[in-house]
Amino acid sequence: MKNITSYVQDNKQRFIDELIELLKIPSISADSAYKNDTIKTADAVAKSLTKAGCDVVEICETDGYPIIYAHKIIDKNLPTVLVYGHYDVQPPDPLDLWTSPPFEPVIKETKLHPEGAIFARGACDDKGQMYMHVKALEYMTKHGELPCNVKFMIEGEEEVGSVNLGKFVKQNQEKLANDVILISDTGMIAKDVPSITTGLRGLSYVEVEVTGPNRDLHSGLYGGAVANPINVLAKMIASLHDENNHITIPGFYDNVEELSQDERAQMAKAPFSLESYKEALDIDAVYGEKGYTTNERNSIRPTLDVNGIWGGYTGEGAKTVIASKAYAKISMRLVPNQDWENITTLFKNHFESIAPKGVTVKVTPHHGGQGYVTPIDSIGYQAASKAYEQTFGKTPIPQRSGGSIPIVSLFEQELKSKTILMGFGLDSDAIHSPNEHFGIWNYLKGIETIPYFYKYFTELS
Amino acid sequence: MKNITSYVQDNKQRFIDELIELLKIPSISADSAYKNDTIKTADAVAKSLTKAGCDVVEICETDGYPIIYAHKIIDKNLPTVLVYGHYDVQPPDPLDLWTSPPFEPVIKETKLHPEGAIFARGACDDKGQMYMHVKALEYMTKHGELPCNVKFMIEGEEEVGSVNLGKFVKQNQEKLANDVILISDTGMIAKDVPSITTGLRGLSYVEVEVTGPNRDLHSGLYGGAVANPINVLAKMIASLHDENNHITIPGFYDNVEELSQDERAQMAKAPFSLESYKEALDIDAVYGEKGYTTNERNSIRPTLDVNGIWGGYTGEGAKTVIASKAYAKISMRLVPNQDWENITTLFKNHFESIAPKGVTVKVTPHHGGQGYVTPIDSIGYQAASKAYEQTFGKTPIPQRSGGSIPIVSLFEQELKSKTILMGFGLDSDAIHSPNEHFGIWNYLKGIETIPYFYKYFTELS
Repeated sequence: MKNITSYVQDNKQRFIDELIELLKIPSISADSAYKNDTIKTADAVAKSLTKAGCDVVEICETDGYPIIYAHKIIDKNLPTVLVYGHYDVQPPDPLDLWTSPPFEPVIKETKLHPEGAIFARGACDDKGQMYMHVKALEYMTKHGELPCNVKFMIEGEEEVGSVNLGKFVKQNQEKLANDVILISDTGMIAKDVPSITTGLRGLSYVEVEVTGPNRDLHSGLYGGAVANPINVLAKMIASLHDENNHITIPGFYDNVEELSQDERAQMAKAPFSLESYKEALDIDAVYGEKGYTTNERNSIRPTLDVNGIWGGYTGEGAKTVIASKAYAKISMRLVPNQDWENITTLFKNHFESIAPKGVTVKVTPHHGGQGYVTPIDSIGYQAASKAYEQTFGKTPIPQRSGGSIPIVSLFEQELKSKTILMGFGLDSDAIHSPNEHFGIWNYLKGIETIPYFYKYFTELS
Repeated sequence: MKNITSYVQDNKQRFIDELIELLKIPSISADSAYKNDTIKTADAVAKSLTKAGCDVVEICETDGYPIIYAHKIIDKNLPTVLVYGHYDVQPPDPLDLWTSPPFEPVIKETKLHPEGAIFARGACDDKGQMYMHVKALEYMTKHGELPCNVKFMIEGEEEVGSVNLGKFVKQNQEKLANDVILISDTGMIAKDVPSITTGLRGLSYVEVEVTGPNRDLHSGLYGGAVANPINVLAKMIASLHDENNHITIPGFYDNVEELSQDERAQMAKAPFSLESYKEALDIDAVYGEKGYTTNERNSIRPTLDVNGIWGGYTGEGAKTVIASKAYAKISMRLVPNQDWENITTLFKNHFESIAPKGVTVKVTPHHGGQGYVTPIDSIGYQAASKAYEQTFGKTPIPQRSGGSIPIVSLFEQELKSKTILMGFGLDSDAIHSPNEHFGIWNYLKGIETIPYFYKYFTELS
């Protein structure tokens, strides 16, 4: 891999330009209004894989958005790396909080990114991080330095729960056969603190609907005499946490893996400043489950958050109305051993059971996925660790992430292989938020580091 | 008034057609997008008063929408009736629940209105009820049967708190001088149970904003570690009622007028079927303050209702986000002796005081007004009672309404005269709701009854 560093420097501008083109397409999988753009993005990704040197590139139709499959097989006796990523992005709203349009990428310097960062929805999650792998492959094929076989599986429904990926994986186990799965869809602790994500939280995402009277009512004539669906929904949501911010759903914690004091002590060694954390979010205090630190609350502990709520009159001015219906979108982050389908059932039963008389409650599961933990003594982890040492000059820190990539546990189950999460983004990259961005330094560092993973993984295998 | 009944029958179709024209104009005062339509409605009302025989008709500019003033003075020594009404309407949303467009009036038969009802926003509240007075005047002037002086004051900001009416009344006390104020902006118990509203609830309407982190956050990376503004808002709203549905704001009940057991017994005599009430709303149970009946809860007791709530992702599909902000519109219905400005302050102080660390809370008062009670031994009440006896063949029942007409107490204070509330609508007319309508029978009965009020009020004075 002797020329990778110079190759990245020489092609820097082209790498940036190509990513910017990809970011211009609003591939919002959650909103059917962007169907054509999402499909257009799939085609663009397929083309880039052909150009990068794949022998086979297929746009595989599903019941939803297509999955791009590609491969370059150089020797059946050599190990095979399967790269997973996604080309769909989160909805950009609230649009008014973006300092530049989400689908008109611009490069701006930030405190953490003096070399500049690309601002656009999907810059980091996951177009930018997925594209690092395409460019890393381009280097290896161009220089005859691809040391093993490689397969790509890039989907377009990750942000809506990978609804069709499971079926695809089950039906294509031979095609997807591999020795290790490589994903860049997570972050690292800091630019000078490389880390490898060894744990992911599971997810259960539901939508609830509370119905009271059969029509909106005048709050003067009916106020105080009938159950107000919004007040009731607020009461029900409030009751889901106790005074210590423990979740009150019966059985919710039954299978939660409790870390040992030693493991928690290890975690606590990761560099973290509560002050700068609060300062970055502009809050005067953190908030969460009693008995756990901030880093534990968002990684090894399950959570319940309302992601959206609406009901009644939300327009300009005042309307004295009692709404007929109130809604909320609620997601629970789960830790290893919590089964998302079981948790979804527990939530549904509990939420319906606490509905007072005078209203009816409907709980609709959206999607979910299992949590995941990977051992740090696997060949894949060791190869990734050595790759970081090569390009960062530091041994990466194993880290539990609070995020969810539900399909990781599916991969292990169906493809019998471990996943290595090499993330190059930063928490401050604002993924899922307005002004999402990806540091150019991080982008190029990723492209530079990935080929070494292939090298060491092949050597260690 | 010997010809009123036949006059109403002979002109029935024209009365309906004229009202329908007025209902076609979307005079939504809460939404500035309808500014021109609201002003257009003011002009239409002014024209109708000229045609009905007023000597003077003025479109009085204010800082908001114009107030229509008109009068016909036949003899300074005779009493003067001041008619108040409003030409603005509530916003029609949710539009998808209307069975016909809110501003394309249609006549449909209903169980309660076999003679047909006009379906349109404002049909009952208040264009239809206001226009009854215009047509009643038309009859009296045409037949030389106007027994006293009459003044009209029709405003365009009732649905947004009559923000400019107070100033207008204070500045025009002489012009508005009167012996009694007559308003049709309430309902009656049933078509065969005429009633006169003797009490109104006050109102305090506020908007609250809860701000957590300075941007929307990824619920996986931050979930459980920072205060989620939506969860916090839900908790704060839930805490505003205790387990008996008493409002928990300190001092909230301090000035609440407690009715005697005798008064409550009198109230309980009004015909009411809890079963048909629940059936009409399609609910399995009523809900409210412990220790009070449904009719007490929505008339003699103060209430707190969330009229609208919003925050986070409310679009199609799922977005795993922790919102930076969450909002709610909250209104409190007040009973006589509760001062709305004091209550607004109590709410603001309490709501801000219960905000947990990690969020900031902003409370913005929208508008409000005082409650009101009128004695049943006044000349005005007696005249109204006799008018109903004339056209309904029944003595009307005095009734407390849960609704608010904040300016009624202002009138008493500034103009030193009592207000008589002769309402001809029904609770089921769905005012402030989709499919608002006004029974043609009620509309015509109102036009027929009103002239008798003038007759008896003049005789009794």
